[in-house]
Amino acid sequence: MSDYKTYFAERRDQHLNELKEWLSIPSISALSEHKGDILASAKWLADALTRAGMETVEIHETEGHPIVYAERMKAPGKPTILIYGHYDVQPVDPLNLWTTPPFEPNIRDGKIFARGATDDKGQLFLHVKAVEAILRQEGKLPVNVKFVVEGEEEIAGVSLPKFLEENSEKLKCDAVVISDSSLLEPGKPSICTGLRGLCSLEITVTTARTDLHSGLYGGAVPNALHALTSLVATLHDEKGRVTVEGFYEGVPTLTDLEKQDLASYNPDEKKLAADLGLDTLYGEEGYTFTERTGARPTLELNGVWGGFQGEGTKTVIPKEAHAKITCRLVGTQDPQRTLDRIDAHLYKHLQPGAKLHIQHIERANAFTCDPSDRMLQLAADAYEEVYGTRAVFTKDGGSIPVVATFSSVLKSPVVMMGFGLPDENLHAPDEHFSLDNFDKGLLTLVNYLHKTAGASAV
Amino acid sequence: MSDYKTYFAERRDQHLNELKEWLSIPSISALSEHKGDILASAKWLADALTRAGMETVEIHETEGHPIVYAERMKAPGKPTILIYGHYDVQPVDPLNLWTTPPFEPNIRDGKIFARGATDDKGQLFLHVKAVEAILRQEGKLPVNVKFVVEGEEEIAGVSLPKFLEENSEKLKCDAVVISDSSLLEPGKPSICTGLRGLCSLEITVTTARTDLHSGLYGGAVPNALHALTSLVATLHDEKGRVTVEGFYEGVPTLTDLEKQDLASYNPDEKKLAADLGLDTLYGEEGYTFTERTGARPTLELNGVWGGFQGEGTKTVIPKEAHAKITCRLVGTQDPQRTLDRIDAHLYKHLQPGAKLHIQHIERANAFTCDPSDRMLQLAADAYEEVYGTRAVFTKDGGSIPVVATFSSVLKSPVVMMGFGLPDENLHAPDEHFSLDNFDKGLLTLVNYLHKTAGASAV
Repeated sequence: MSDYKTYFAERRDQHLNELKEWLSIPSISALSEHKGDILASAKWLADALTRAGMETVEIHETEGHPIVYAERMKAPGKPTILIYGHYDVQPVDPLNLWTTPPFEPNIRDGKIFARGATDDKGQLFLHVKAVEAILRQEGKLPVNVKFVVEGEEEIAGVSLPKFLEENSEKLKCDAVVISDSSLLEPGKPSICTGLRGLCSLEITVTTARTDLHSGLYGGAVPNALHALTSLVATLHDEKGRVTVEGFYEGVPTLTDLEKQDLASYNPDEKKLAADLGLDTLYGEEGYTFTERTGARPTLELNGVWGGFQGEGTKTVIPKEAHAKITCRLVGTQDPQRTLDRIDAHLYKHLQPGAKLHIQHIERANAFTCDPSDRMLQLAADAYEEVYGTRAVFTKDGGSIPVVATFSSVLKSPVVMMGFGLPDENLHAPDEHFSLDNFDKGLLTLVNYLHKTAGASAV
Repeated sequence: MSDYKTYFAERRDQHLNELKEWLSIPSISALSEHKGDILASAKWLADALTRAGMETVEIHETEGHPIVYAERMKAPGKPTILIYGHYDVQPVDPLNLWTTPPFEPNIRDGKIFARGATDDKGQLFLHVKAVEAILRQEGKLPVNVKFVVEGEEEIAGVSLPKFLEENSEKLKCDAVVISDSSLLEPGKPSICTGLRGLCSLEITVTTARTDLHSGLYGGAVPNALHALTSLVATLHDEKGRVTVEGFYEGVPTLTDLEKQDLASYNPDEKKLAADLGLDTLYGEEGYTFTERTGARPTLELNGVWGGFQGEGTKTVIPKEAHAKITCRLVGTQDPQRTLDRIDAHLYKHLQPGAKLHIQHIERANAFTCDPSDRMLQLAADAYEEVYGTRAVFTKDGGSIPVVATFSSVLKSPVVMMGFGLPDENLHAPDEHFSLDNFDKGLLTLVNYLHKTAGASAV
C-alpha cells in the first residue's frame, strides 16, 4: 500500500482540483432551473470515468434525470463490484449562512467546503480515483467493476428503481458498494448492515357536523379530540411496546453477534439523555439505545392537532382532529401489511360516535444484511489496515429506500462503506468533507478492490 | 289581568317608541369609543325608572361602567324583589350582515330588530314598564322592588361582584329576578334553576431540548405527543366518566322532581344526533342528554396540538405538545379544588422522561336553586296564566358567573324568568325580540309581582 500512499500524495492537488471542478456545478435535482447543471454534472462524471479507464461509459436517459453507467469487465472468474452513488445535490438555502459560496469549493482547516462535498460527490469521487489509480499503477483491475450513479437521490426519484428492475441481468454483481454515509466518529469506521423501513399515514377523526359549544353540549356529544387522543393512546402499552396486533411479525431476534455489535457503539445513555435535555431516555423495555433505534421497529406520532390553539380559553367541542404517524420497520416487516394492521387496530378502538378517515402515505422496506458475509468482512479488513481500527457493524435507524431496492433486486450483499463524518452538515450550510478521510478513503477503497479479488465470484 | 291587557294594548306604540329610543344608543361596553353611549344608556334607564315611579334612583360610579340602582320600598311586611339586568350590548360586527342598521330599531314580521333587542334592553324594559303599569293602575306596588342594572355584562366586568359584596345589606331581598334568557321554544316558558360552573387550564408537555429525527432516535426517546395524548386519554374511562380522583365530590344526586323536570324537555336523542351529523350521542353512561348537559359535570379537551401539521410526512419526534381543557361544574364542586385535583392526576400519570407545565386560567362556581322554592313556583304560576302552559324548570349547561354571585352573596333564590327565544341572534347580526313575548312578558311580570305579595317576606 505504500506505493499507493505515494501515488495519491503526489497527485493530491490535482485530484482536489478535479473534485473542485465537479463541485462547482450546481446540480440541484429539486430545482428545474438547474436541469442544465444536472446534465453537466452527469457529463462531468462520465468523462471522469472514461479518463479513469472504465471501458463502457453510458448516460442513460430516464423520465427524470439521467443515470450514468460504466463497467470494466476484464477480470474473468473474479467477483464483480457494483459501485453506487449520486451526482445530484441538495438545495443551498439559507445561502447567507454559508461561510464561502456553496458552489465555489474552498479548502480550509483540512476540509473541503461545498454543497455535495460529502453528500455525495466527494465520496463517489474516491471510487473513481481508486479505480484510476489501480489501472495506472497495475494496468488492470483485480475485479470486475460497474458504476451506477443517479441524479435523483435527493428527490427520492423513481428512475433508479425502474432502471434496476429493467437491467437486473446487466447489473448482476457480487457486492454493491455505497459510500454515502459516515464513520461513527473521526478514526472510527463503521459499516451499516441495517436500515429501517418506513410506512406513514395520516388519520382524521370527525364527530359532529360543526364545532359545538361546551355549555350547550359538553358531556353529551362525542369530542373529536377525546376520540383521537384516546385512540392514538392505545397504540403503545405502558412498557413502550406497540400494541397493534401482528406488528412485530417479521422482526428478527437479535443474534449474539448483532447484540455485541450494537453494544460496541451504544452511547453512554445517561450522558445522551442529559445532552438531549431529558431526565431519561424512553422506549421499548429490555432494549438498549442502539437496539431500539437500530434493530427494533417503532411507531411515532409526528403531529397531532385539533380545536382551539389560540390564547386563552374557547369553550369549543371540536368536530375534527388529526394525527400523523410514521413507523420505522425492521427485518421482513411489510410496510403495506403494517399499514393495514394499524388501520384494523384504529377501527377496532374507535370511540362510539366518532368517524375515522385514514390516508396511507409512504411505504419502504427495511434493509438488513449479514455482517458475517465475506464481502462485508473484507471491507472491515480494508478499513482496519488503513485506519488502524476495525470497522464496527452498525444498524442505522433511518431509512434509505434505494439500499433495500438494490438488495432485493440484485440479491447481492450491500456494503455501506462511508467516509463522511456525522457533523459534516449534509443538507445544511457549510457542508464539507474531511481531507483526512479523503486520503484514507482512497487507500481503503484500493485496498478493498484488491481484497475482494480473493473472494469467490457468483 | 284583563285591565292590564287593555292598558298595555293602548300604550303599545308608545312603549315600543320608548324602547326604540333606548335601543338607538350604541352602548357597546367592549369599545372605549362608546364610553359616552354607555353613560347615555345608563342615564336613559335612570330617567325611565324615575318616570316609572321608582323612588330612589342612583347612578353609582365604578372603576368601570356605572351601575344603575333604584328602589321603591313602600310595601311594609311584604317581600322585596330585586330585578337585575344590563344596559350594555355586544359589538355589532359584521355590520354588512344586518338587514337594517343595529342602532336604527326596526319592526317587521312581529319582531323588533336592533342590537340589545333581546339581550338585554328589551327584556329589562318589560320590568320597568310592569312596575310603571301597576303604579299607574293601582297607585302602589304589591311588593318592595329594587333594580340593579350593570353596564359590564358583555365584558365580564368586576364592578358588579364588588358592588354586591359592598352593598349586601342594601340589596337584601326575597328573590332576585333576571330576564336575560329565553323560553324553551315559542309558547313554552322555562325557568332555569341551574347553571354550570367552569374551570379551565392549559397544559404543556415537553421532552427533549429540540425536535429529534425519528430515524436517529425513534423508539428510544420520549415523544411529547405520545406523552400528552396518553396523558389526556387517562382523564376519562371507557364509559365517559372523568377519572380524576375526587372530581365528582359536590355533585348532587338528582331528585325525582329534578329528573322529571329534565326528562320533560329532553330532546329526541336520535333526531338530535342526526341533526348534528352524528351516528350517536356520547357521554357519561346512565344519563340522558339533559341530565348530562344540565346536571352532570364534564371535562372537555378544547384544543390539542404539537409537531408537524403541514402536508405530507415529516419524520420528527416533537419536543413539546399542548392541550387546552375546560370543565363544566355543578353543585358545590369547587373550581380551584377541581383544578388542583386535575393537576395531581396529570402529574401522577405523566410518562417517564416527559415534563409537565400547567397554567390555570378561569374559575367560576356553579349555580343551582331548588325549583320547589315558593318564589320559583309563583313564577311558574305567573307564566302559566299568561302562556296557558306551565314553565318548565331547566338546568342549563352554560356558565353565567353573575348568577352564582347573586345567589351566594345575597342568599336569595334567583328566578331566571326569560322572555327571549333561542334563535333571536343574540351576539349576532339581526338580533331581535318577539313582540308576542314582549306583550306576554309585560303581563307575566305584572302577574308575578302580584303573586309574590302573598309570599312571606324575609
